[in-house]
Amino acid sequence: MNTQVLSGKPLAALIQQRAQDEARVLENSGRHPVLAVVVATDDESTLWYVRSIERAAERLGIGCRIVDLGSEATEQVLASVLRDLSAEPSVNGIILQTPLPVGVKADSLVGLIAPEKDIDGANPLSLGRLAVGQHAFAPATAQAVVELLDHFDVPVAGRNVTVVGRSAVVGKPLALLLLERDATVTICHSKSGPLERHTQPADVVVVAAGRTGLLKGSHLSPETVVVDVGTNVLPDGSLVGDVDEASVTGVAAGLTPVPGGVGSVTTALLLLHTVEAARQQEPAQLAAAASAARI
Amino acid sequence: MNTQVLSGKPLAALIQQRAQDEARVLENSGRHPVLAVVVATDDESTLWYVRSIERAAERLGIGCRIVDLGSEATEQVLASVLRDLSAEPSVNGIILQTPLPVGVKADSLVGLIAPEKDIDGANPLSLGRLAVGQHAFAPATAQAVVELLDHFDVPVAGRNVTVVGRSAVVGKPLALLLLERDATVTICHSKSGPLERHTQPADVVVVAAGRTGLLKGSHLSPETVVVDVGTNVLPDGSLVGDVDEASVTGVAAGLTPVPGGVGSVTTALLLLHTVEAARQQEPAQLAAAASAARI
Repeated sequence: MNTQVLSGKPLAALIQQRAQDEARVLENSGRHPVLAVVVATDDESTLWYVRSIERAAERLGIGCRIVDLGSEATEQVLASVLRDLSAEPSVNGIILQTPLPVGVKADSLVGLIAPEKDIDGANPLSLGRLAVGQHAFAPATAQAVVELLDHFDVPVAGRNVTVVGRSAVVGKPLALLLLERDATVTICHSKSGPLERHTQPADVVVVAAGRTGLLKGSHLSPETVVVDVGTNVLPDGSLVGDVDEASVTGVAAGLTPVPGGVGSVTTALLLLHTVEAARQQEPAQLAAAASAARI
Repeated sequence: MNTQVLSGKPLAALIQQRAQDEARVLENSGRHPVLAVVVATDDESTLWYVRSIERAAERLGIGCRIVDLGSEATEQVLASVLRDLSAEPSVNGIILQTPLPVGVKADSLVGLIAPEKDIDGANPLSLGRLAVGQHAFAPATAQAVVELLDHFDVPVAGRNVTVVGRSAVVGKPLALLLLERDATVTICHSKSGPLERHTQPADVVVVAAGRTGLLKGSHLSPETVVVDVGTNVLPDGSLVGDVDEASVTGVAAGLTPVPGGVGSVTTALLLLHTVEAARQQEPAQLAAAASAARI
């Protein structure tokens, strides 16, 4: 069968447009949405990615403050910066960019991001709120997957969706988002045995395992829709997903490309979340945060 | 085949013994573990259940403070009581018992339970921490399921476990606990279509849907282990689970009874959690909590 390429670019453009429109409305009432990205690495591809967020933000009228602490930053310094940004009224969204310096664990640091500014759903409280159906920003990558499926009119309600990968950043939050949309969700992983046992009964397969070439055409039933969340950098510097594109093409009904699939949508969502956070942070709340910061 | 009855009572007795032993150790260092149960209902069966917790606690040397606010309690009063108990150094564990008065939502109230005292994993932060692998008390019912499987040596690693029900109290936290133990987890629910499609491929089926007679023998492959989390009160006052016991018996390899299955283990775990919370709450922390309460 003909496998449709489910490009993320048109959807990313729509989301960016919405972010720009909403940012303009805020500007008109004297508020300027600002995203802070905390960086503590000298990894070139990460720095390139952060600069690409900055450029996209500026294009949409969103301020972007890169807080580069260098690859030697200690956990104490990172914690203190995250606390300050959480209390700082002029900052609406906060991202703690990985990788972090050796020995520094993201685990306790992400809990310091104020939930209302946690636009990448990194604080465990955000994940817990998602689980109980309270308002929280979902991790942008997980949300990008469901937005892509929506955009291409791929139904999930009452259908079987298999998520390959159980990370706290993608697999688990994605399962929560899919359950919210009435999908039947199977989560499999490296200990699950033969992959096809879990992917063949699925109408939609989402791969987020971080292993090049993991999902092959032989793992799928015809007409399955495949979303590739993998971002693996090959020795030659090129970016590939977790899907073996050659064998999946012709079997799947649709496949998101890497690059140009989930990743494009993710970045756009981070910016939209920043504007939404700015809108939700009422001036009164900001004043309270400022006063708390002074205590 | 011969279906083994997987009674929760021997395991409950073991857990109670452990709680009693640990409570005694704490007593010897001058600390007395205390559980507070906040009640705001005049529902007879709930009040009976709360009294049964109280009796069990006292038998094990754990203090139990029932804070009965009556069925007319407002959200404000409940919130204030939960804040006070969270700050009160002599209280180690807190349960907000449902049902709550009409119009009062548990959602925002459970967020007021201090995470270190949240021995039934009701605060969304506890659920989020579970999801990212940080320390938190799991909802006792969900944990009771995995403890029961462990107790009867039912392996879950690398096997397919289907959870019927997607509640924030059982289905979702149970999925997290099972993933932590390397199970492949499928979560299905009322919108999932024919039940057998999801339960027949499973090695273990956990039903937590709250529907009498939902799971029948015809939904299962032979040798499946079935855990029944349902607690449905029939018009004659008797308690039954979600499993159609007559048809499942003879097909399943094992089945937890209702009553006397998951429920017995749940109550024992609430008490064990209380003792563990008391042990983890160092005197220094308690002093800090007391001082915070005075601010």
